Amino acid sequence: MGNVITGDTEFFKGINQIKFEGPESDNPLAFRWYDENRVVAGKTLKDHFRFAGAYWHSFVGNGGDPFGAPTHVFAWDKKSDPIERAKDKMDAAFEFLTKMNLPFYCFHDVDVVDYGNDIVENERRLQALVDHAKQKQAASGVKLLWGTANLFSNPRYMNGASTNPDFHVLAHGAAQVKAALDATIALDGENYVFWGGREGYMTLLNTDMKREQEHFAKFLHAAKDYARKNGFKGTFFIEPKPAEPSKHQYDFDCATVIGFLNQFGLEKDFKINIEVNHATLAGHTFQHELQVAADAGMLGSVDANRGDYQNGWDTDQFPNNLNEITEAMLIFLEAGGLQGGGVNFDAKIRRNSTDMKDLFYAHVGGMDTFARALITADNILQKSDFKKIREERYASFDSGKGKEFEQGKVSLEDLRAYAIENGEPATISGKQEYLENIINRYI
Amino acid sequence: MGNVITGDTEFFKGINQIKFEGPESDNPLAFRWYDENRVVAGKTLKDHFRFAGAYWHSFVGNGGDPFGAPTHVFAWDKKSDPIERAKDKMDAAFEFLTKMNLPFYCFHDVDVVDYGNDIVENERRLQALVDHAKQKQAASGVKLLWGTANLFSNPRYMNGASTNPDFHVLAHGAAQVKAALDATIALDGENYVFWGGREGYMTLLNTDMKREQEHFAKFLHAAKDYARKNGFKGTFFIEPKPAEPSKHQYDFDCATVIGFLNQFGLEKDFKINIEVNHATLAGHTFQHELQVAADAGMLGSVDANRGDYQNGWDTDQFPNNLNEITEAMLIFLEAGGLQGGGVNFDAKIRRNSTDMKDLFYAHVGGMDTFARALITADNILQKSDFKKIREERYASFDSGKGKEFEQGKVSLEDLRAYAIENGEPATISGKQEYLENIINRYI
Amino acid sequence: MGNVITGDTEFFKGINQIKFEGPESDNPLAFRWYDENRVVAGKTLKDHFRFAGAYWHSFVGNGGDPFGAPTHVFAWDKKSDPIERAKDKMDAAFEFLTKMNLPFYCFHDVDVVDYGNDIVENERRLQALVDHAKQKQAASGVKLLWGTANLFSNPRYMNGASTNPDFHVLAHGAAQVKAALDATIALDGENYVFWGGREGYMTLLNTDMKREQEHFAKFLHAAKDYARKNGFKGTFFIEPKPAEPSKHQYDFDCATVIGFLNQFGLEKDFKINIEVNHATLAGHTFQHELQVAADAGMLGSVDANRGDYQNGWDTDQFPNNLNEITEAMLIFLEAGGLQGGGVNFDAKIRRNSTDMKDLFYAHVGGMDTFARALITADNILQKSDFKKIREERYASFDSGKGKEFEQGKVSLEDLRAYAIENGEPATISGKQEYLENIINRYI
Amino acid sequence: MGNVITGDTEFFKGINQIKFEGPESDNPLAFRWYDENRVVAGKTLKDHFRFAGAYWHSFVGNGGDPFGAPTHVFAWDKKSDPIERAKDKMDAAFEFLTKMNLPFYCFHDVDVVDYGNDIVENERRLQALVDHAKQKQAASGVKLLWGTANLFSNPRYMNGASTNPDFHVLAHGAAQVKAALDATIALDGENYVFWGGREGYMTLLNTDMKREQEHFAKFLHAAKDYARKNGFKGTFFIEPKPAEPSKHQYDFDCATVIGFLNQFGLEKDFKINIEVNHATLAGHTFQHELQVAADAGMLGSVDANRGDYQNGWDTDQFPNNLNEITEAMLIFLEAGGLQGGGVNFDAKIRRNSTDMKDLFYAHVGGMDTFARALITADNILQKSDFKKIREERYASFDSGKGKEFEQGKVSLEDLRAYAIENGEPATISGKQEYLENIINRYI
Repeated sequence: MGNVITGDTEFFKGINQIKFEGPESDNPLAFRWYDENRVVAGKTLKDHFRFAGAYWHSFVGNGGDPFGAPTHVFAWDKKSDPIERAKDKMDAAFEFLTKMNLPFYCFHDVDVVDYGNDIVENERRLQALVDHAKQKQAASGVKLLWGTANLFSNPRYMNGASTNPDFHVLAHGAAQVKAALDATIALDGENYVFWGGREGYMTLLNTDMKREQEHFAKFLHAAKDYARKNGFKGTFFIEPKPAEPSKHQYDFDCATVIGFLNQFGLEKDFKINIEVNHATLAGHTFQHELQVAADAGMLGSVDANRGDYQNGWDTDQFPNNLNEITEAMLIFLEAGGLQGGGVNFDAKIRRNSTDMKDLFYAHVGGMDTFARALITADNILQKSDFKKIREERYASFDSGKGKEFEQGKVSLEDLRAYAIENGEPATISGKQEYLENIINRYI
Repeated sequence: MGNVITGDTEFFKGINQIKFEGPESDNPLAFRWYDENRVVAGKTLKDHFRFAGAYWHSFVGNGGDPFGAPTHVFAWDKKSDPIERAKDKMDAAFEFLTKMNLPFYCFHDVDVVDYGNDIVENERRLQALVDHAKQKQAASGVKLLWGTANLFSNPRYMNGASTNPDFHVLAHGAAQVKAALDATIALDGENYVFWGGREGYMTLLNTDMKREQEHFAKFLHAAKDYARKNGFKGTFFIEPKPAEPSKHQYDFDCATVIGFLNQFGLEKDFKINIEVNHATLAGHTFQHELQVAADAGMLGSVDANRGDYQNGWDTDQFPNNLNEITEAMLIFLEAGGLQGGGVNFDAKIRRNSTDMKDLFYAHVGGMDTFARALITADNILQKSDFKKIREERYASFDSGKGKEFEQGKVSLEDLRAYAIENGEPATISGKQEYLENIINRYI
Repeated sequence: MGNVITGDTEFFKGINQIKFEGPESDNPLAFRWYDENRVVAGKTLKDHFRFAGAYWHSFVGNGGDPFGAPTHVFAWDKKSDPIERAKDKMDAAFEFLTKMNLPFYCFHDVDVVDYGNDIVENERRLQALVDHAKQKQAASGVKLLWGTANLFSNPRYMNGASTNPDFHVLAHGAAQVKAALDATIALDGENYVFWGGREGYMTLLNTDMKREQEHFAKFLHAAKDYARKNGFKGTFFIEPKPAEPSKHQYDFDCATVIGFLNQFGLEKDFKINIEVNHATLAGHTFQHELQVAADAGMLGSVDANRGDYQNGWDTDQFPNNLNEITEAMLIFLEAGGLQGGGVNFDAKIRRNSTDMKDLFYAHVGGMDTFARALITADNILQKSDFKKIREERYASFDSGKGKEFEQGKVSLEDLRAYAIENGEPATISGKQEYLENIINRYI
Repeated sequence: MGNVITGDTEFFKGINQIKFEGPESDNPLAFRWYDENRVVAGKTLKDHFRFAGAYWHSFVGNGGDPFGAPTHVFAWDKKSDPIERAKDKMDAAFEFLTKMNLPFYCFHDVDVVDYGNDIVENERRLQALVDHAKQKQAASGVKLLWGTANLFSNPRYMNGASTNPDFHVLAHGAAQVKAALDATIALDGENYVFWGGREGYMTLLNTDMKREQEHFAKFLHAAKDYARKNGFKGTFFIEPKPAEPSKHQYDFDCATVIGFLNQFGLEKDFKINIEVNHATLAGHTFQHELQVAADAGMLGSVDANRGDYQNGWDTDQFPNNLNEITEAMLIFLEAGGLQGGGVNFDAKIRRNSTDMKDLFYAHVGGMDTFARALITADNILQKSDFKKIREERYASFDSGKGKEFEQGKVSLEDLRAYAIENGEPATISGKQEYLENIINRYI
């Protein structure tokens, strides 16, 4: 099999930088909606989204799946020296990010350079790549949205990392987090993420869940304290997911994570990074999870992708559903956007998307979907009666007894008396179909 | 169509009280495992379970479903006067509870007697039945495990009750809760339940979720304050469910409810009533939800039933899965049982189970399944190495650096140093298949 | 509670006939896309879709659900005489169909007039309404797309109708089908549908599945023979659904139904009526089911609605997803449209959509979604390289050895020889993201 | 990390052959129920089940998952020469099969020896191992239940094998199947399996489904013709699965496969291999799929495992659910067992089950579960009224009009006349809870 995602001295050569050409363009390598300088609701699209490329899916993920071998063969993956090979990969990554017009990127430690089981050697490798990344960032203007440590792929984490029953394993996880924090700080990373793929259980039969969750909290405190001591000013994000690879993951969904952060005194430093496909796997809409996080003041960042509603695992496809993302952007805009984070394409091209261009098509589609959805949502909020309808629904709590109730001044007996006095309430339609039509009217 | 669940002056006549006859019995109307006086882990089975019959499924549910008309025609449902009809129903209910050897029952206000839209008339009806129930309780020894108000069936609650956007509707919900609390207190009810079937949304497009949840909390405070003022000493339970009839229900699962209770200062008075089928609809095992609640000190009560894993709605079938319930009873026993509640059969015979005896068979099967599972779980805990294996898994945190970590004395740098010093950890099997075999060995 | 869907002598008065006003219209009671005379791919939109209103959801369904009482109170549902009441309902229905610009309608026998357990009286009632419907059809020009008999709501069908273990019940089902066929023929109904809601099982433990399916086939043959003998020239449709109300329904999905029809010699007279929400409940996309039916020459008709991907039951919401319906319309157009059927809105307004107008909004949204999707799909097929890409993918089978293979002339040894001779194949991208972008480019 | 599943010159040394010790044994490496010589329903347990070990999960699967690296490190996987390495693996496999008392094994070509992209070299390797296997089979008495070719892991199959749009790829698939058939025939394999993991689509947008399915059928005919010509007398099995790794797999479930086999004239030579976890992923119970296959005379073989009802992918856990397997064994026994196949443990120990013994525990648990379930099912059929209840349910079709109906002699008019003459049918309970209790009574 020949190289499929390839190039020679310059990766992706032959593809120019993706530009905005407007809705009528028939160029598949142009934006139709993502005009980064377009101002919507007081901000440019660029500032709204702070789009990021994901190192792992685009530069490390090779198309392998549980039933098949890699199909994405990278030209940059050839040299035998791990650091030199990693630099080639980073050069390719920055070339892609730049051509794709992505202002940010995100990484796990092990994405950047191959890791082994030797802590000091791993740190040396990561340091070498941090040095390289500094140059690439400076030259390109691309910035680090967030860093993270992969505490789920190494076999030693098979029973969890910070929730591993063996303290010895936990300590190794801490060493990795320390190095990843150091790298993030060195690269002016704006945030740091925890996704706990193995922080959960495979079976409750062998698990002391309470103790594991307490360890998890202690671990997060230790990481936070270290980072703060070393000058990290950004936000920590927890990324919820209900399961996979674990049978149950402790960070099940936004509500669970918020409860956990509050319980363990972490709510000041941590917010949430919401992934679309994780939301749907948890039995929620993406919109729901955005709303839950926003209501708690914890809407930090977004991992953009989509799942397959007919399958039951994380497919991490690129977002393309206009109705879904438009409804999400309504919440996004009303919440005032993201707190510190951005929109990271935690999405992968299909295993059989093996052309060099497929990675570009995928990002073009995703960025355009978000841009079009945000513009549509802004139109809905500005031009339609969408907001007004919702506000009027709750008007009975804006004055009189309803307002007193909100102020905690009304007892159960008072409420009963009010009900008797006022008789049976009028029937008030929820107008769901009317509101749904508004969405499509503005798409 | 003839009467299908029927009788004459005495309901269920011809069926004697169900007795324990041991595993070898071939009498389908006998217990094979539920010997109420058998002592397991220091308590009788009767005291462990505090089994309850559910008024709604067994005496009100008529077999109707969204695609078909009622099939369960009750002999007690004939008189035209609502109070007299309700008394007949209650007589039948107590006859069943007594014959079935169920020490408790549970009800919603509208189960006990038909409700209309007139608050005062409803209160009068409920009071009449409370008086009747007092006599029935005294005569039979059957007690009220918990009462509740149905705030989801009346059309006025179509947009929610305590979370309705219209304060006027909320006030009606409060009137119902007040009356249901009065009834529960008058009948020495041991607990009071909130299941918020419509406390959620049909679409986020018309919903101010934050405001609705704040109203929900205020409403619960008002109810709690009223009940405490009027002498209620029992526990309040929230019963989680992720959806149905709402698209999303705020009390999604145990973790969500615990977070909510803590956020709004309700955690002292409220615990959780876990329903098996609700757990599975939320993407959890029943065992998981028990563990989450137990870890928070909130394992209050259980609604026993099962779902259909191939369907996606609440089927409320009677429990019969030995593996599932045995794993649940391990958690039940290790948690020290339920805090205040009992095991209520929130389960219904199938729409086409139309013989008088089917209701008995169903409860016999359910009670035997729990009894057998508890006995099995106790054997596992007493006789096998099940507990020891789990305790040893966490031994590294019982002393040394691991213990210091639990005490919060170890920094990220310390952990890294420990990892370097101690090298790569040994691989330790999770022994899942071994532990699963233990379950079957003791069934 | 007051009447919520109401009117006086004229139902829906105050709402004019819905007209096409184009995408820029801000009238919520106008079509933006459904210009019935617009020609797309050689046919008007009206002829493509043959839109139909569903009697059951729009004129019978009252908003009741398993957890709550009716919320839709109909002005036409007042008279005590069942036939007079049914005529009022029919007058309302035709007023709605006419104002909504729906050229067709569909019904079950029991939708048209209330049924009891007396066969002769039921036939008399139905005949009276058939006479009334003839006049309404003649006056309005609205036609009957298909009729059907409801063999699932009456308690006698709780164990199935044509698959009931009791022959006596089967005979009652046959009586209903005969009357419904007579009505359909009398009203020039173009097709006749079988949806077997209870033709399946609640538990395999009491079921002889093979025998039940043989009875099912025999029953369909008897119905077909009767109809043909009495002059019915239209098509019979089977409507697949995997479950609900049954635990398992025999007509699980298109592939299952096609296998069944072929097995029992029914494939000449029967085609398939595909419902969107039933497709997704069966683990398929709507598009998939369209393709399966089209490939078998059995794409007969469509029940338009949508499910809720986060819930697990038939929500029958109105269609609004542009991406989903556009992908479906690609298959629709390439298959040459529907064979005999139309697009029937088997969809219901939400229980809390209680305004008279909600029913109009819902149909406006649904019709516009289909119209926009069809126009978009036609643009994709005409203007983009969508079709060409797919055709070129299979070009290796258009000539040479590949063509010989299709002709059955190539043995396994030949294939091996070809593989050795030609070496390792080139890697060819599936271009999924590129193709998905085309969809959004044309929406 | 040290070797975790290991040994030196003899793999699994220190573990003796697993023996039957009876239900009271506390030896975790003994059978409690699987007494291979016990006669149930006229056959020994050994002959009922014909248990097989699965080469891929137990000797190739290394614990890697999409989120993590291998954790199962095999002592036999050390030598650099692929054939020598493969022989070591085979020696280990036969040692395990013998110690585990498994009379059969199953393999894919690529399990037995590593494959590259050179057809002739692959054939040479496979031939070398076939020679080795002949000796191992002769020495141990272990036989080959079925062979198969892996047409899903090699990157060239990313768009399908026999359904690949590129004829060239299809030809490579044929070369592999030819070699796998040759191997199966040479080893007296009793059956040959097709599992089409990539025979489906990733998106309909690029797929000509009809053409692909026709290619699939042509391919199966070519394979069958070759095998028959070369003396293969066994049965071909299709193994259904709805999805994964494909978005949709053509062999969705039993009903779909049966329709396909009949459509393309393959029904004489092919039967079905049913996997438990595939059944549940398709929205069916295992029992359902057994019944569908049995009713079609196509119940060929079983892949024993279980899924996780809370997750949505193929977890392939070892079977342990007594209720589920007992219900399945009722169908198994009533169908007269499997036609040609056996019970193959297509199940894998968890990624974190890293002890040498875990593989033994897992098989002990699985074999005991099937044995206990079969014994229980036989007791139910012999001792309870289970069968009688079902037969009596259908008695109305055993004589009179019901029988005439089964004979096709009754018209729709006749049925109506019968219904009128006999009035409303009696209500007959489905007795589901009664029947479910029987299951638990006999476990």
